[in-house]
Amino acid sequence: MANITKKVSWSSRADESAAAGEGTPLLNGSEQPQHSRQDSLRGRPKEIPHNEKLLSLKYESLDYDNIENQLFLEEERRMSYMGFRCLEISRWVVCGLIGFLTGLIACFIDIVVEQLAGIKYQVVKENIEKFTEAGGLSISLILWAVLNSTFVMMGAIIVAFFEPIAAGSGIPQIKCYLNGVKIPRVVRLKTLVVKVCGVICSVVGGLAVGKEGPMIHSGAVVAAGVSQGRSTSLKRDFKIFEYFRRDTEKRDFVSAGAAAGVSAAFGAPVGGVLFSLEEGASFWNQMLTWRIFFASMISTFTLNFFLSIYHANPGDLSNPGLINFGRFESDSVAYNLYEIPLFIAMGAIGGLLGALFNVLNYWLTIFRIRYVHRPCLQVMEAMLVAAVTATVSFAMIYFSNDCQPLGPEHTEEYPLQLFCADGEYNSMATAFFNTPERSVRSLFHNQPGTYNPLTLGLFTLTYFFLACWTYGLAVSAGVFIPSLLIGAAWGRLCGILLASITSNSSTSAQDSTAIWADPGKYALIGAAAQLGGIVRMTLSLTVIMVEATGNVTYGLPIMLVLMTAKIVGDYFEEGLYDIHIKLQSVPFLHWEAPATSHWLTAREVMSSPVTCLNRVEKVGTIVDVLSNTSTNHNGFPVVVQVSGSDESGKLCGLILRSQLIVLLKHKVFVELARSRLTRRKLQLKDFRDAYPRFPPIQSIHVSQDERECMMDLTEFMNPTPYTVPQETSLPRVFKLFRALGLRHLVVVDDENRVVGLVTRKDLARYHLGKHGLEELQLAQT
Amino acid sequence: MANITKKVSWSSRADESAAAGEGTPLLNGSEQPQHSRQDSLRGRPKEIPHNEKLLSLKYESLDYDNIENQLFLEEERRMSYMGFRCLEISRWVVCGLIGFLTGLIACFIDIVVEQLAGIKYQVVKENIEKFTEAGGLSISLILWAVLNSTFVMMGAIIVAFFEPIAAGSGIPQIKCYLNGVKIPRVVRLKTLVVKVCGVICSVVGGLAVGKEGPMIHSGAVVAAGVSQGRSTSLKRDFKIFEYFRRDTEKRDFVSAGAAAGVSAAFGAPVGGVLFSLEEGASFWNQMLTWRIFFASMISTFTLNFFLSIYHANPGDLSNPGLINFGRFESDSVAYNLYEIPLFIAMGAIGGLLGALFNVLNYWLTIFRIRYVHRPCLQVMEAMLVAAVTATVSFAMIYFSNDCQPLGPEHTEEYPLQLFCADGEYNSMATAFFNTPERSVRSLFHNQPGTYNPLTLGLFTLTYFFLACWTYGLAVSAGVFIPSLLIGAAWGRLCGILLASITSNSSTSAQDSTAIWADPGKYALIGAAAQLGGIVRMTLSLTVIMVEATGNVTYGLPIMLVLMTAKIVGDYFEEGLYDIHIKLQSVPFLHWEAPATSHWLTAREVMSSPVTCLNRVEKVGTIVDVLSNTSTNHNGFPVVVQVSGSDESGKLCGLILRSQLIVLLKHKVFVELARSRLTRRKLQLKDFRDAYPRFPPIQSIHVSQDERECMMDLTEFMNPTPYTVPQETSLPRVFKLFRALGLRHLVVVDDENRVVGLVTRKDLARYHLGKHGLEELQLAQT
Repeated sequence: MANITKKVSWSSRADESAAAGEGTPLLNGSEQPQHSRQDSLRGRPKEIPHNEKLLSLKYESLDYDNIENQLFLEEERRMSYMGFRCLEISRWVVCGLIGFLTGLIACFIDIVVEQLAGIKYQVVKENIEKFTEAGGLSISLILWAVLNSTFVMMGAIIVAFFEPIAAGSGIPQIKCYLNGVKIPRVVRLKTLVVKVCGVICSVVGGLAVGKEGPMIHSGAVVAAGVSQGRSTSLKRDFKIFEYFRRDTEKRDFVSAGAAAGVSAAFGAPVGGVLFSLEEGASFWNQMLTWRIFFASMISTFTLNFFLSIYHANPGDLSNPGLINFGRFESDSVAYNLYEIPLFIAMGAIGGLLGALFNVLNYWLTIFRIRYVHRPCLQVMEAMLVAAVTATVSFAMIYFSNDCQPLGPEHTEEYPLQLFCADGEYNSMATAFFNTPERSVRSLFHNQPGTYNPLTLGLFTLTYFFLACWTYGLAVSAGVFIPSLLIGAAWGRLCGILLASITSNSSTSAQDSTAIWADPGKYALIGAAAQLGGIVRMTLSLTVIMVEATGNVTYGLPIMLVLMTAKIVGDYFEEGLYDIHIKLQSVPFLHWEAPATSHWLTAREVMSSPVTCLNRVEKVGTIVDVLSNTSTNHNGFPVVVQVSGSDESGKLCGLILRSQLIVLLKHKVFVELARSRLTRRKLQLKDFRDAYPRFPPIQSIHVSQDERECMMDLTEFMNPTPYTVPQETSLPRVFKLFRALGLRHLVVVDDENRVVGLVTRKDLARYHLGKHGLEELQLAQT
Repeated sequence: MANITKKVSWSSRADESAAAGEGTPLLNGSEQPQHSRQDSLRGRPKEIPHNEKLLSLKYESLDYDNIENQLFLEEERRMSYMGFRCLEISRWVVCGLIGFLTGLIACFIDIVVEQLAGIKYQVVKENIEKFTEAGGLSISLILWAVLNSTFVMMGAIIVAFFEPIAAGSGIPQIKCYLNGVKIPRVVRLKTLVVKVCGVICSVVGGLAVGKEGPMIHSGAVVAAGVSQGRSTSLKRDFKIFEYFRRDTEKRDFVSAGAAAGVSAAFGAPVGGVLFSLEEGASFWNQMLTWRIFFASMISTFTLNFFLSIYHANPGDLSNPGLINFGRFESDSVAYNLYEIPLFIAMGAIGGLLGALFNVLNYWLTIFRIRYVHRPCLQVMEAMLVAAVTATVSFAMIYFSNDCQPLGPEHTEEYPLQLFCADGEYNSMATAFFNTPERSVRSLFHNQPGTYNPLTLGLFTLTYFFLACWTYGLAVSAGVFIPSLLIGAAWGRLCGILLASITSNSSTSAQDSTAIWADPGKYALIGAAAQLGGIVRMTLSLTVIMVEATGNVTYGLPIMLVLMTAKIVGDYFEEGLYDIHIKLQSVPFLHWEAPATSHWLTAREVMSSPVTCLNRVEKVGTIVDVLSNTSTNHNGFPVVVQVSGSDESGKLCGLILRSQLIVLLKHKVFVELARSRLTRRKLQLKDFRDAYPRFPPIQSIHVSQDERECMMDLTEFMNPTPYTVPQETSLPRVFKLFRALGLRHLVVVDDENRVVGLVTRKDLARYHLGKHGLEELQLAQT
């Protein structure tokens, strides 16, 4: 727990904190972390041995298993049926609040981005128009680049200097959190503020990013905050929802928050629920699912409602999400059976391109981890990317001569005439000189003929590399929209090519062109394929896409495309989020143990020997155990010594470091010589007040006298920890651990004596590599 | 296991089999089943003490936990990575097959029903037209009633006499199966055949039923059959998919089958997945979910494809399900913010009407269980209902004088002119003289003014009572479509009334009537409300409705309506399926332990003492234990006696009755005097071949010599059963049991000695009643 007060960077900044494992063994030669001797290097920005073959010990687990100690059981037993009903109602209220606040945040981001981007485009457009005839467009370019870089600089500074965890989309972090890994500072208020400001800056700064991914993170932070009824950052405690101050409840609410975020981002409440379940749920509970659904529903509704007021059309519920794909009317763009192979082929292309994207980004991330880990370097890189993006866009617009007539049905907000004739506008500018959301929509819905193939091809190419370069910068931004945009561009290109092929070759042209003619359909399929190829979600992404298009007709093709993209992509490389999770060496538990791991048993997997405590233990021993920095245990089996036996005692409970810290803080000692001190009985409230930021052991002063006292753990330990025998196979241990969301699993022999402890890292260590089962090394960083 | 060969009726027929519990204690006074002394009554059709305060011991659990004995582990360890890949691929193949076959069955039912119903309506229509002018319409009525009764009689006879389990929609049975309860004969081929024929007969017989619910059951049977690679009924073993012959795998496939059924019934693949998860999944696994999704997708696609060929329009994918709500174009029927309170109010009405429906059906079911349990009575009741339905319909059509012009856009297949003027048709006949699916569609989509309010009101009233009477008859039929129809009728009525109120009162009529004018929208909301009020599903039903309408716009109102209907309905009475499950005294495990059950611990809950076996046990003892009919245990802890101690031994494994039966059958004995017999080593294959119909112990002959032999259980027992200490609280035990889908949970003391056994009935026994926590009684019937 020592590292909780230090800065731990998810992003590329070097973290120099010492180790903290769930229950690292005191002595186990082979698995001794390799870098524990590197402490001497502390202080200089060393090159961190980041690679995907390591598992970091710095991440703690969340405890999804209730600590059913005497205090807890007494409280539960005191509570009446009405008490439980009230709790249930307050859970619904919290979920409603989560949805409402998440919707509001989405609304705020949307409006601010629209206003700021509007001003920016207006200024640049006027400047370009001024200089088009007179010459000197390079001044416009500089203006554009400087404007963009300034916004991006602001966004990068707050992220890099104040809250590195707010970088990126936040989806990998939320995936980890829902998986049960405690990522430090990921659900703090400060992170939320930095995230929201950061995403506004980066979107307005014209980077190839979207504002949708960060919504998921924002929703999660809102949920973690609201459900606790207090803010540690603001030092306010509203004295409400105190019952929810534990990992079990908090994690459920964070699921709801993530779902509400997806819902607000894409107008996809069902998709949001499925996202949360796909990423988080180890145990599906019907009531929980409904509450998550409720939060999602409120979130999209709130966004919709406030946007309708903002658009001066209150009551019109046509903006359910930050991105709307616009209406696909089923008659105009129906698909036919023989198009399905084409869709599947596009899915394969998406998988390939996605894998390429991921591989490039993987190398880039490795490079960044090695060489770009100082905040100022990170800010400079972000500014460089912003300037390059502006320059490339400008060059593309400048050199393209794809002029389109400004028709009456034309919908561009900022048409650039440039060198086109009067009444025409530059079509390349539609794609670049616009927020990415608008560009996606115009690729889906603009009339056939709006874009020529060359424009689309060039756009795909440049945007692909820009987006790839951008993801992983120290700015808050998502990868959903760039992926959709790249996919929509090459999808539309495919559509145009198909239409030209069929109209050339087909004799019954009249009939077939009616179907092939609409490239918007192919843009949609391409977008799905590209996004699926990059992020590799299937069920939830299908539902999100279907909800975003507002039309169920496309359900089947989208499913097929996403499945193909996943299968093809997985052949080459993992999904983008998984790559980033691996590069951070997070002990992430997958759904099942590796298939070929039946020959491993708990005996091989567990950490042993384990530091055990006695039921009534000397305070000095406890302090020493907790202070031992080389093995930063977080959970300790409590044992009863069998009289007349020198073997280890029988298991009678499990106590957590955090509980011991609270006990030490409140001096819950039984003095030896004198009678028991009169002291206030420790209550659950004391543990809840300390949750989740328990002080480090160093901050607690224990005098020499006190060290001689005894501490009775009976009331506070969990008397019924889950146990497994030593012969249990790894898949069986894994299943128990994963299904119940455990943090510690005690391994006992047939006399109920403690022989080992299985924690998250012991299970996450084994994975299926190219050469069969591989074991990851454990590292302190 | 003794009862597996006897007939156990889910439906109302009396079952006279003796008891079979998971692990009924040998001796425990208070929990001794109350009716074990009623065996003397056997043989006469006694009145069964069915009420919802009982828990039947006749149902076994499925074992979702793999039996990881030595044989299993050896096989798994032998298997290479490629082997697991092949298994994974064959799982996908099986799911594809399940989807394909389920789609085909749906297609078959649809086509046969359409053909037969077409003939019937044509005959009756011609007859009515002949007699309308001439008088003597009573002959038409008789013709109609006789035709209907004949069809229904056929349907009822096959159900009542050949396979009572095929009665009803099958959804409660599948819910129980997915919950982990083994309902005898529910997934057999014979059940499928009877179900399919039965549903055709009852739909063609004009009952107030739908063909959708039974699809879910059909899909589940297909899944259970295909995944096993053999059919016991047909005595064919294809020697494939042998790996899948165990409860764990089979249950996963049945989930996929149920999803495929929903998908084919409603054209809702995502809804199908959610249905399976909502009802079944205790442990959500991503790969499993995808396979389920795949099966769903294939199913709807197959149906769509073959129906498109049948409709002579191949390649047109507009029939994704048995019921299609028709296309709701979003522009024509957009809803507005201020309509949401109206929708919620309609949800409340739906909840009330649903609760009324359920209460009436509850009483009716009690009545049926008491007095209508002979097959011939059941057939007669079904025929009576058919005749009454025909008569009531006829009377309603006869006495209504709601004539509508036969416009050019008119879509009735069988318009009845009756006493209307030429060029007009009787509008009441549209609702009654049609398959229910068509009626629903016409209520959703017919032009405003097609129905007058009186017609709708009368129709709602009569159909409500007819549907209520019909559900629970000994015919295969679902309650989805009747619910939708009732709801659509009163929903449309609401819409018409609202339109007339607003057009009278509103001054700016032009604007508002444009929105209020379309009663189809209200019909949809009413249908959702009524269905939600009766079955009380939320998330899955929302998605099903959204997918069936093909329009995401209605997502939000449908969600709100379904939630309201559930909250209001739950206040009065449970959902229809839950009522029927309770009335069958099935030990159904809900999601969580009752809220106020923390004061209960494993010690109070468990059955004890437990019959334990020694690791090397005398054959005679085993045979005696298995033959003891008064306590029909299914699982036995295996213990090692501690030398010099007369206490119960230490737990070292768990063995199932089914395993012991196989061991006895293959005479796997260690003879005492002589050396080991040379015998073939027993393999997993022997257990798989016997699965799932293990012979009863009575059928296995063990000679007196053999009784003296010993049997070594080491290789076959599960050496690492899950255990809990005695102090574990009920919610904790419940969570472990439910999350892992266990069948037996051993309770041990701190010396690892067996003190009790927790099985499904021990957990299902506790439920939250009106007066706090209640304990259900256990009954042998």
